Amino acid sequence: MSDPALRDELQLIRAIARRLAPRSATVPFGDDMAALPRDGAWLWTVDMLMDGVDFDSRTHDWRSIGRKAMAVNLSDCAAMAVHPHAALVAVALNDSLNIDDALALFDGARSCGDAFDCEISGGDTNSWASPTVISITVVARADPRFRPVTRSGARPGDRIFVTGRLGGSILGRHMTFQPRVREALEIADRLSPRAMIDISDGLALDLSRIAEASGCAAVLDAALLDACAHGDAHTLARTDGVAARDHALGDGEDFELIVVLPGESDAREIARLGLLPLGEMTVGNGLLLRDAGKTTPLPPRGWRHFRGSA
Amino acid sequence: MSDPALRDELQLIRAIARRLAPRSATVPFGDDMAALPRDGAWLWTVDMLMDGVDFDSRTHDWRSIGRKAMAVNLSDCAAMAVHPHAALVAVALNDSLNIDDALALFDGARSCGDAFDCEISGGDTNSWASPTVISITVVARADPRFRPVTRSGARPGDRIFVTGRLGGSILGRHMTFQPRVREALEIADRLSPRAMIDISDGLALDLSRIAEASGCAAVLDAALLDACAHGDAHTLARTDGVAARDHALGDGEDFELIVVLPGESDAREIARLGLLPLGEMTVGNGLLLRDAGKTTPLPPRGWRHFRGSA
Repeated sequence: MSDPALRDELQLIRAIARRLAPRSATVPFGDDMAALPRDGAWLWTVDMLMDGVDFDSRTHDWRSIGRKAMAVNLSDCAAMAVHPHAALVAVALNDSLNIDDALALFDGARSCGDAFDCEISGGDTNSWASPTVISITVVARADPRFRPVTRSGARPGDRIFVTGRLGGSILGRHMTFQPRVREALEIADRLSPRAMIDISDGLALDLSRIAEASGCAAVLDAALLDACAHGDAHTLARTDGVAARDHALGDGEDFELIVVLPGESDAREIARLGLLPLGEMTVGNGLLLRDAGKTTPLPPRGWRHFRGSA
Repeated sequence: MSDPALRDELQLIRAIARRLAPRSATVPFGDDMAALPRDGAWLWTVDMLMDGVDFDSRTHDWRSIGRKAMAVNLSDCAAMAVHPHAALVAVALNDSLNIDDALALFDGARSCGDAFDCEISGGDTNSWASPTVISITVVARADPRFRPVTRSGARPGDRIFVTGRLGGSILGRHMTFQPRVREALEIADRLSPRAMIDISDGLALDLSRIAEASGCAAVLDAALLDACAHGDAHTLARTDGVAARDHALGDGEDFELIVVLPGESDAREIARLGLLPLGEMTVGNGLLLRDAGKTTPLPPRGWRHFRGSA
């Protein structure tokens, strides 16, 4: 009872993980998706989005809000290289919404799911006086050709890539991103990645999760990192004075994939799949930045608001 | 845009059902659980609970709140006579909670799930400034001996039972009820029920759902109904002037099961399983009350707050 209020998400999430860590997991607890216990084929994930935190109903239309609520789950499927299968949609709708808005939310979620063969099979519909909350659960199937890709398989000597440019998603891409499901399945089939994660909380924080889960360190190359900064990161940099590199490192909700490949992977295949190099895994722990030959520790900064997967 | 605000849950839920009704359901859309598409063995359900609506954090402790959030899902598993398997727990915690409270919530959910072999395999942990929301998703397996029991199999001539006394759950049982999972599996094994549902929104409303889904009418016998009123219904009746029968009919969150059995079912088996008779299904539609030989329509009253499954 003397504990502080909920300000430190890591403390709470780690405490929950210690208590809940399942007895029979085929995927480590805390990965992008959980495996169904005592079953090799099914994985599942849930994401809860809150008005004013993950979207803003004053500026975003309800169709794109519903789309995002589905897409963040499909991005988790991409991170594991598994096939989205079905979804349940639970909502607590603010009671000032009209029916057209509520249906637009469901239509946005449904059409986003349909594009990835992920059917909405049910849900729970409620309303209340507080801001709208949307919680979508997605079940996915492992691909028969390869195991789901976890966060924990990276090794020293592996190389770090990303599926697209990073930073400045707040200018709009955090609502409109394409979950990298097809790309992930092709990467898993062709390149046997050691580890993957989708960037929800920022490159630095999400890459540090791979490093921690894999028991090694991640070295980012400053020049490669700069080359990965999105145009939106540069646009933001001109107005807020934060370097584009720092936007690429710390901004959340890019929903690109960090892909860790064995050092000997086929360079032509990597180029064909459009993967952008960022650095490599090495012995040690944490995150490092190599700039002009000098390597220094990098804090695992990330999206500031309280958020995380247990 | 000219539509009214969200006051009529049925209008919204039906509109959602029309849009989302899956292409390949083995369980009708809108039942207590949904079947995973293109799969015969797995079912799943989600329930979202909101502070101030489904529980009151000013008077309920967080462990019992977490317990209830899990138990309502297990009650859905009971309604289908399937085996709970695993759960995902998503929360938006009010940021004034302390860590002990948050962990008590998870402990309550976990220990309730453990009692039914339903392991928590992951989740999504968030906090915000608004009241706490808990959304738990449960996956269950069909029993190899029988199909999941839906709402839609009742026929004229079938008899209506309930697994326990009803009404007045607000005095405490809505937080402490036992999900009837084991009872349901034994009933399904021994008595081949035509239809089942758990009473979340009140006997009248939930029985009318069976009648509507099955395309027939349900007749409640007034004397049998009176005999089913819980002691809590009588206690409430003494203070609020509403008859105990009306509490039994209209109060929500009893989480007993309505069980519809073929007319020729074994009376000794029914008695051994503790099922209480309420009436029978008949040709027609809607809900009827038979009192002193006279049969009159009964409005499908139920728990008043906006709530429903899509």
